[in-house]
Amino acid sequence: MVQTVRGREARRAAILRRAAEVFRRKGFHGAGMREIARGLGMAPGALYYYFKGKEDLLFACQAMSLRRLIQSATEIASSGLPPQHMLRQIVRAHLRHTLGDMGGGLAHLEFHALPPEMLEEVVRQRDAYEAIVRQVLKEGMAAGVFAARDVKLAALTVLGALNWTVVWWRPEGPYTIEEVSEQVAATLLRGVTR
Amino acid sequence: MVQTVRGREARRAAILRRAAEVFRRKGFHGAGMREIARGLGMAPGALYYYFKGKEDLLFACQAMSLRRLIQSATEIASSGLPPQHMLRQIVRAHLRHTLGDMGGGLAHLEFHALPPEMLEEVVRQRDAYEAIVRQVLKEGMAAGVFAARDVKLAALTVLGALNWTVVWWRPEGPYTIEEVSEQVAATLLRGVTR
Repeated sequence: MVQTVRGREARRAAILRRAAEVFRRKGFHGAGMREIARGLGMAPGALYYYFKGKEDLLFACQAMSLRRLIQSATEIASSGLPPQHMLRQIVRAHLRHTLGDMGGGLAHLEFHALPPEMLEEVVRQRDAYEAIVRQVLKEGMAAGVFAARDVKLAALTVLGALNWTVVWWRPEGPYTIEEVSEQVAATLLRGVTR
Repeated sequence: MVQTVRGREARRAAILRRAAEVFRRKGFHGAGMREIARGLGMAPGALYYYFKGKEDLLFACQAMSLRRLIQSATEIASSGLPPQHMLRQIVRAHLRHTLGDMGGGLAHLEFHALPPEMLEEVVRQRDAYEAIVRQVLKEGMAAGVFAARDVKLAALTVLGALNWTVVWWRPEGPYTIEEVSEQVAATLLRGVTR
């Protein structure tokens, strides 16, 4: 079977979406490679051609989410927009990436299932993302629009509210990602505003 | 061995604290009954006298946390205090119970590890707790001090920021529970205030 690089990448992305969805329903330990493969119309053996196993899949889900979060936040943080607008856009991008792209990716929560070296890498990426959010908060504080006694705690409060959405939000539930984004952004913005 | 009811209850509580601590470090699937027993100076067999297994322990950890959360929130919500004070006290009680009593109980996060009937019970208790928080928010809205387009989303934003603390807070880390409570409460209160 000849496959282009682009074809392979698209296939990997489809596998990650499916894996995230199965992880969400079953939890990491309850999910099986067989079930993930079945939903993709692939033989389990073919799945192993792309990912070495469940840990590898979980890591790839988290790494993909974090790459997108960091990329979006980096663009937003260097946009020159007022800090309030930056923060609002970061909230939107965060929920779009974690709830939308990954179908409510509870993969986001399953840290302990990762082997140490993968967990370290995920923690590094999370720290990098958190640093961008702190930077935006600091700019807002310097501009006199945001208030926080401790910028790290403020960032963790904002990110906590965002990250927790993967626990309760469901694609089939009563709220669209748009509705959640709008109100969560409003609450969090008021929360950090002077 | 003769044991009083009170002795048995104290022993159960000590086991849950220890279990929560091991779950936090190792994750549910990485934790072992043997390791939990060892830290208590008990034979693994003796541990099974109190809890049927790891699922039972995890369920008991969550049930104990939720019982305390609901009890505190119920008392606070019927205190007749102004809604802002009630919400501040709920934040404090929440962090005291989830971070303090359970030593940063990541047990709080491991839903999927529970068998269906235990998970259902935990979800029921979580819903009951969330309902009390919504009630406080509604009272604040009726009193004209809180603002929220959708009270459920506001409650989930508040609870998300609180629940996520178990992911990043560590007893040996730079912040006391008191410091976290104070600033998280300030941010969330501003967030829901009109």
